[in-house]
Amino acid sequence: MKKYFIILICSLCLLPANAGGYDHFIFGVCYYPEHWPETLWDDDARRMQECGVNTVRIGEFAWYYFEPREGEYQFDLFDRAIATLAKYNIKVIMGTPTAAPPKWLTQNYPEVLIVDPDGLKRNDQTRQHTSYHSSKYREFCAKITRAMATHYAGHPDVIGWQIDNEIYCHARESFGPEDHEEFRRFLMERYRQLDTLNHRWGTAFWSQWYNQWSQISIPVVSSAYHNPATMLDYRRFLSWSAIRFYNLQYDIIHTLCPDDFITTNGTFGYLDYYEMSKKMDIYSHDNYPCFFAKPQYRAATMATLSRSYNGRYMIMEEQTGTGGQSYLLRSPRPGEMSLWAFQMIAHGADGMSHFRWRTAHKAAEQYWFGVLDHDNIPRERFDEFKKEGLQLKSIGDQIYGSQIHSDIAILRNIENEWVYDYQFFTKEISITTVYEDFIRAASELKLQVDITGINNDFSNYKIVFAPYLIMMNKPLAERIKKFVSNGGIFISGAHTAVKDYNNSMTWLVWPIELNSIFGLTINGFNCYPPPSSNANFIRLGTDSIPVNVFADFPKITTAQITGTWGSGYMKGTPACTENTVNKGKAIYYCSFFNYESARALLKKYSVEANITPLLNGIPETIEVTCRTKGNTKYYFILNHTDEQVNINPGTGFYDLINNRKIAGSYTLQPHEYLVLKPE
Amino acid sequence: MKKYFIILICSLCLLPANAGGYDHFIFGVCYYPEHWPETLWDDDARRMQECGVNTVRIGEFAWYYFEPREGEYQFDLFDRAIATLAKYNIKVIMGTPTAAPPKWLTQNYPEVLIVDPDGLKRNDQTRQHTSYHSSKYREFCAKITRAMATHYAGHPDVIGWQIDNEIYCHARESFGPEDHEEFRRFLMERYRQLDTLNHRWGTAFWSQWYNQWSQISIPVVSSAYHNPATMLDYRRFLSWSAIRFYNLQYDIIHTLCPDDFITTNGTFGYLDYYEMSKKMDIYSHDNYPCFFAKPQYRAATMATLSRSYNGRYMIMEEQTGTGGQSYLLRSPRPGEMSLWAFQMIAHGADGMSHFRWRTAHKAAEQYWFGVLDHDNIPRERFDEFKKEGLQLKSIGDQIYGSQIHSDIAILRNIENEWVYDYQFFTKEISITTVYEDFIRAASELKLQVDITGINNDFSNYKIVFAPYLIMMNKPLAERIKKFVSNGGIFISGAHTAVKDYNNSMTWLVWPIELNSIFGLTINGFNCYPPPSSNANFIRLGTDSIPVNVFADFPKITTAQITGTWGSGYMKGTPACTENTVNKGKAIYYCSFFNYESARALLKKYSVEANITPLLNGIPETIEVTCRTKGNTKYYFILNHTDEQVNINPGTGFYDLINNRKIAGSYTLQPHEYLVLKPE
Amino acid sequence: MKKYFIILICSLCLLPANAGGYDHFIFGVCYYPEHWPETLWDDDARRMQECGVNTVRIGEFAWYYFEPREGEYQFDLFDRAIATLAKYNIKVIMGTPTAAPPKWLTQNYPEVLIVDPDGLKRNDQTRQHTSYHSSKYREFCAKITRAMATHYAGHPDVIGWQIDNEIYCHARESFGPEDHEEFRRFLMERYRQLDTLNHRWGTAFWSQWYNQWSQISIPVVSSAYHNPATMLDYRRFLSWSAIRFYNLQYDIIHTLCPDDFITTNGTFGYLDYYEMSKKMDIYSHDNYPCFFAKPQYRAATMATLSRSYNGRYMIMEEQTGTGGQSYLLRSPRPGEMSLWAFQMIAHGADGMSHFRWRTAHKAAEQYWFGVLDHDNIPRERFDEFKKEGLQLKSIGDQIYGSQIHSDIAILRNIENEWVYDYQFFTKEISITTVYEDFIRAASELKLQVDITGINNDFSNYKIVFAPYLIMMNKPLAERIKKFVSNGGIFISGAHTAVKDYNNSMTWLVWPIELNSIFGLTINGFNCYPPPSSNANFIRLGTDSIPVNVFADFPKITTAQITGTWGSGYMKGTPACTENTVNKGKAIYYCSFFNYESARALLKKYSVEANITPLLNGIPETIEVTCRTKGNTKYYFILNHTDEQVNINPGTGFYDLINNRKIAGSYTLQPHEYLVLKPE
Repeated sequence: MKKYFIILICSLCLLPANAGGYDHFIFGVCYYPEHWPETLWDDDARRMQECGVNTVRIGEFAWYYFEPREGEYQFDLFDRAIATLAKYNIKVIMGTPTAAPPKWLTQNYPEVLIVDPDGLKRNDQTRQHTSYHSSKYREFCAKITRAMATHYAGHPDVIGWQIDNEIYCHARESFGPEDHEEFRRFLMERYRQLDTLNHRWGTAFWSQWYNQWSQISIPVVSSAYHNPATMLDYRRFLSWSAIRFYNLQYDIIHTLCPDDFITTNGTFGYLDYYEMSKKMDIYSHDNYPCFFAKPQYRAATMATLSRSYNGRYMIMEEQTGTGGQSYLLRSPRPGEMSLWAFQMIAHGADGMSHFRWRTAHKAAEQYWFGVLDHDNIPRERFDEFKKEGLQLKSIGDQIYGSQIHSDIAILRNIENEWVYDYQFFTKEISITTVYEDFIRAASELKLQVDITGINNDFSNYKIVFAPYLIMMNKPLAERIKKFVSNGGIFISGAHTAVKDYNNSMTWLVWPIELNSIFGLTINGFNCYPPPSSNANFIRLGTDSIPVNVFADFPKITTAQITGTWGSGYMKGTPACTENTVNKGKAIYYCSFFNYESARALLKKYSVEANITPLLNGIPETIEVTCRTKGNTKYYFILNHTDEQVNINPGTGFYDLINNRKIAGSYTLQPHEYLVLKPE
Repeated sequence: MKKYFIILICSLCLLPANAGGYDHFIFGVCYYPEHWPETLWDDDARRMQECGVNTVRIGEFAWYYFEPREGEYQFDLFDRAIATLAKYNIKVIMGTPTAAPPKWLTQNYPEVLIVDPDGLKRNDQTRQHTSYHSSKYREFCAKITRAMATHYAGHPDVIGWQIDNEIYCHARESFGPEDHEEFRRFLMERYRQLDTLNHRWGTAFWSQWYNQWSQISIPVVSSAYHNPATMLDYRRFLSWSAIRFYNLQYDIIHTLCPDDFITTNGTFGYLDYYEMSKKMDIYSHDNYPCFFAKPQYRAATMATLSRSYNGRYMIMEEQTGTGGQSYLLRSPRPGEMSLWAFQMIAHGADGMSHFRWRTAHKAAEQYWFGVLDHDNIPRERFDEFKKEGLQLKSIGDQIYGSQIHSDIAILRNIENEWVYDYQFFTKEISITTVYEDFIRAASELKLQVDITGINNDFSNYKIVFAPYLIMMNKPLAERIKKFVSNGGIFISGAHTAVKDYNNSMTWLVWPIELNSIFGLTINGFNCYPPPSSNANFIRLGTDSIPVNVFADFPKITTAQITGTWGSGYMKGTPACTENTVNKGKAIYYCSFFNYESARALLKKYSVEANITPLLNGIPETIEVTCRTKGNTKYYFILNHTDEQVNINPGTGFYDLINNRKIAGSYTLQPHEYLVLKPE
Repeated sequence: MKKYFIILICSLCLLPANAGGYDHFIFGVCYYPEHWPETLWDDDARRMQECGVNTVRIGEFAWYYFEPREGEYQFDLFDRAIATLAKYNIKVIMGTPTAAPPKWLTQNYPEVLIVDPDGLKRNDQTRQHTSYHSSKYREFCAKITRAMATHYAGHPDVIGWQIDNEIYCHARESFGPEDHEEFRRFLMERYRQLDTLNHRWGTAFWSQWYNQWSQISIPVVSSAYHNPATMLDYRRFLSWSAIRFYNLQYDIIHTLCPDDFITTNGTFGYLDYYEMSKKMDIYSHDNYPCFFAKPQYRAATMATLSRSYNGRYMIMEEQTGTGGQSYLLRSPRPGEMSLWAFQMIAHGADGMSHFRWRTAHKAAEQYWFGVLDHDNIPRERFDEFKKEGLQLKSIGDQIYGSQIHSDIAILRNIENEWVYDYQFFTKEISITTVYEDFIRAASELKLQVDITGINNDFSNYKIVFAPYLIMMNKPLAERIKKFVSNGGIFISGAHTAVKDYNNSMTWLVWPIELNSIFGLTINGFNCYPPPSSNANFIRLGTDSIPVNVFADFPKITTAQITGTWGSGYMKGTPACTENTVNKGKAIYYCSFFNYESARALLKKYSVEANITPLLNGIPETIEVTCRTKGNTKYYFILNHTDEQVNINPGTGFYDLINNRKIAGSYTLQPHEYLVLKPE
């Protein structure tokens, strides 16, 4: 009991109105004073204020300026820039510049550079070319961070810090001598005795038995396939090392600037953000919808994930105009920039910072368009930005700190995702896509769902889905059993609980530790080669749901059969089961989830659990979320389509965007969004 | 005449009932006692015996155990395991562990590791990471092999040896200093004088003329295209070097354990198994049908190839359950495991060993499912394995040593295949696919065909097909002429006999050395870019056969035109010709063979040659083969489909599987197989 | 005014009848006496003469012979070969052999070899494996060139030189120490001060600011995206370095053999042939149509480009038979070889040399078929070659020196193409394809177009198209304005004039420097992801033209709207505009050009400019060009189809190919070509 109590306390801790100095709704842009003539700064700041900007992020790539020669620091340019911004009441989030070291550093200390798998190639030609595992690089990062935090400690206009920039945005594996050494140190700490590692990894296989720690190196492309246990530990190492890199800067800044909030901007691979965000006052996400052909549900998924890490998030970089480097993305249509910004807020963001103020003239990002074009002339994007800024100036304070409440959760286990990264089975398996399938299905049904980390407390949800839960241990199994026993509905996808957390098979019958709760064992399975969706289907009530890659064949002990396989030699055998345990139910769905199964199961079990739609009268394509603060609800209604769409949420709403009552039917314009408050 | 006499003697030599100690039908599994608690061994052996197992393969990846430190050997664990198996009358095939060296070897002697083309990257992280060209590695392999053969010499329960494991399973080219040196040595031995090499390769081209042997290195990716003569010699070297590696172990074991049989398990690229199997008591093939979407004809092709090497083969690893590493194959359907095992036997296998007993818990092959699951609980696969084992216990002795007799052969020349590996023309050319096309067409027509190496005697066949016979020399031309002259039907595909065995063009008119036998010369050709099959067709009797990539345009001297081009500027010109020479015929088919031409030509010429189907009353999809022992015939009838299929082979058969007479019509269940003996 | 006068003089200079010793129509083949028995030479030469050959190219890969050991030269073999050829009145173009160094050179001086991006891999296994940036290699090239030029200076049978062979045919980037050093030297010369480079490139971005020149290296694959300014300068360097390599040999030969003409054969990437051909008496193109599925318009495009460099061109290598290395191309159909040769002449070629005489027996090009097959037997290709040779013997002198006159030009800026090489936007953008679209549309409309380098004088054209003109500067803008002001029609595609020649954005409004001439500014744009062609369209008169990737959205000042966007949020807004300035017009077309827009705009504006078709009565697929010499016109009429096609060019023509009058209707056979002279 004590344990759950601690988790509860902790989850309350995560939701203060003023965590670590972050205490109001931020609206802003990313700004690079070092790239522009100083004569422009005042006009820039004035126009920012005109648009409602209260904060800008600066500094995150300016190490060449801050430390022009080793150990020599200068801040004048930024001091002046901050002063100019302050004239217009604009505060600053200071970025530590460690994602882009100066040339003197990389040329004098080439050991800090990332090394390709051949152990040779390395260069310093763009950014993020240094290894998180390098002790020398961490030493330089600590120094510049300390210099900056010392200089800006107590500065009234610096209110927060972004550590580094987009950690692991670019693939950052490194294969130099120190990288291998650090991997070994990580393993030594984890296993203590080499033979413990030998036994846990099973190195007797293929004569891989290690006689000395020094025989271990980072796995690279080899003649044959790697040990899954090794691959999982390597992924654990990559995340651990980057978090160590982050925490080093966090601790320095937190000590020197205790009133400033601290964050970093994601969201990228290799990282366990649940772990990383423990030392983060607010999590930041960079939202660039144009990377996706149809961004609505993908962006909603990323927002839901961002909310899940430590309970608070903001947008540090919100796409403003067209983007590209050597490629070029499609341009946002009129209204989409602000629609997408409000979508992030609709899912819980407590701050909105656009990328970027004025489009760069030179270098790699000259095609990432900002609020202003190259020629500094305000056009449609400027107008839209200004409108959005003034809207948020008006309602930001009201919605700040309001929460998303959901009765349904999707369980997420990053270590399990790492297992599937290596053992991907077929090219059709995509865990992110399954999250998006749930988000889409829930959005169409107007249900609000959370995605939650497996170590978070999920006991208060009514329904919990567990996709891709391939590894299992006793404590987790106990939490699941308790959840069901207390009345929860637990719905697992195929191939659940087949290995322990060493990524090894065990002597236990599948699903390990969970036979009794599901009332079955798994007798066998099939893996359909791509394209799988036509290969079989599951009859579930009146639905025929296409298989998604995997098919488990259960042997029933106490469960009820609620679905059967539709074709093939297993036709008519169980494909979905339901086991009632005390007040709750454990459902085993025998394929990987997809959109169709997510929708069918959400529908069926939300009705059973008395979970009702957020609003009625809203077409499926229109997104609805609800943020709650005390007794007040804020309904966000977003039209992602290029068409006019009619809604009828009923009477009694006040439209905070347009400052008027909404009564009954209303026609949303293309890309229009509303924030409705019940009167 | 003497030469052919020798070949005849030799081909008789290949078919003894007791070659090199292999003298009965083996049924078994692969087993890894070193991976499991010793307390389980007795129960494992008892259950194996219950399933009819008489032999297990062990030891092939346990070098880390056999030689834990350089020069220190231990065998206790395996001695005890063999003793436990012997309690249940189970014999052992011992694997030499040289496909997976221990860490102390690779770390102390890194020169044994394979090196990437850049000359730098090497690692020992999985298996098969050592170079067959390394003298140091061969020295270590000889030592461990000698130690094992000395220890187990005369051991009553060790009956045979598998050398290494799946040689060249993973790509094994290596580019270290010794690899280049060994390639040069191979060339020195082949050409003696450097200028002989210069002239044969034609190095005057592009100023590639060599002044010293040391200027030659293994061909790697270069600015432009390589010399085909170099590429062919490099492939010859790769095969020669691996056979040297194999023979070294063979000679040691054969000397120390003269009564044990010796084999190794294929089938993989880079290797001339015709050459390699000269020192093999029986050839072994590893059969994993789930690697192919539709395995029926592909597996039959591999079996036919396996039979062709030295006349005897067994299966060392037969797929049992689902397989995968990072990928995952589809699972065998109920009955397929044994159907596929019997398919191998139907094509001549004299032994059947399944991979593997119990599924591994750890490391790279945890998803290769054995007879037993991880949890050691016998399920459907166990039952099917046991049923198969008991069937083979009942009929294995009867069919052991029986032979496949065929009147039709497909000529195979591995050096020609190597020519096409580099000069692939278009991505549509696939020699393996053409073998499979013939096997499928013959299977549908119920004709039994052999694939035979070009150096084997083919004079006793009635019909010989020669696909992709791009290189020609006088002795081979003489054998072909003699074959035809003696009444044989010789059918060649396009682009036959265009180069000599230096892979060079000559001053001779195409088809070189064979103008007279075919009664034509080749006047020109065309190569259709992909997809070729719609680009043209050949009118052959009433058939319209799609072109396969290549079109030869012959100029007739004495041949009859039997087919013409169907479209394009060559419409109506000869596309298939027949030249009668003495008692036989030489047919020139002007495109590469494909399924349609294989079927049309097999049909036409089998009728001419009075070759009748093996059985009547069997639908096309049902596979039939016939093994003969003395006067007794064993008909194997296999249903590869998922449906019931009706057959009517006539009366007078005894069904050895079900121990009953078959009279007239019979309904095969999905995946059912029969072995019928005429009464 | 002075400037344009100079350009005019210069353009006259380019068209002498006897530039640098090239003074008659060459017909010939490539020949390799060093590959064949000397006993065959006389017969070869005799048959060449029989076919009308007056010139052969020799020597270009024979360095191994010319300099068998460092500093030892020999020429005997070639002296004898030249003498044999001379017996039959055949002259020689001598190739310098620097595309294929001898082994002693590359093995003793490995620093000359190209180095892969990892800085390590290098080999000398094929050809073109040396770096143009290597000073040591240039030194050796100068020596062998000087030795050859000295030996053959004044030789009556050597009439011209080909320098090296197919420069940059294979990718030739190199990353060794000297390559990096040379890149830095190039930049030092260009920028003088390091901070000038820092500012022009904008290295403040991502802290890439350089403190020392030595910190700069050739851009390789890095963590993130490169600076476009760096990438453009690197491309400038690659071209500059190869031209330096070429000029070194040119200067030596030109000094020693002032009466011989000098050329090199293209056409390949990385090179600014406009710059390179300044020191070329005639440009040479290698024409291999079978590399393309439908070569008609592609080959016409390459011919039009070849004509554009310095005003004169010949074909050094014209495809004769089937071609291939490891791949194999489709074979030319009967008649295509000569059709394609005449197509080159139709577009202005003043010489025709086929590749090659007899097909090689050995090495990498044994599948590149020549006039004769391997077996030395003359077949259809020999007959066709002979017929072509005799036709050219008959008409070559007449048409020699005649010119293509066109009123329409497509502007080409190689530096802009380099910009798009890196910043390719989407995989659909293809500048070469757009040139081909124009050539096809013009060919169908029987209009004659030039492609002309941006630095050439374009003031005399009536219509100028400017695709992909992404960089702009004041002098070019002035030339455009003047052209329009003087009555020209200037038609620009999308995204014109957005950057300066540093590849940087500027403070100016798009299209920079050209707002007034187009009467608009660009307000925004969109980039359609692939496939773009269905994503939107432009209404232009009665045409609906599919968008090509890009959509500009103009804000009109003085222009007229002539086309509008067809769908999407910009539906009905301007998509094509026309601005009348003085006597001329500037048209802004708001997408990238494609075939449909090229055709619509060519049609519309050729009518406006009173440009009439070359001939009437000719179907669209039949190609027509016109060469003019004094008052005489030569109409080339070419049937690229496999069908008979009827034409009716009217009366009054004399058919120079068949020596007869053409009166009215005429049926072209498949692949037939005519040369008509008005009587």
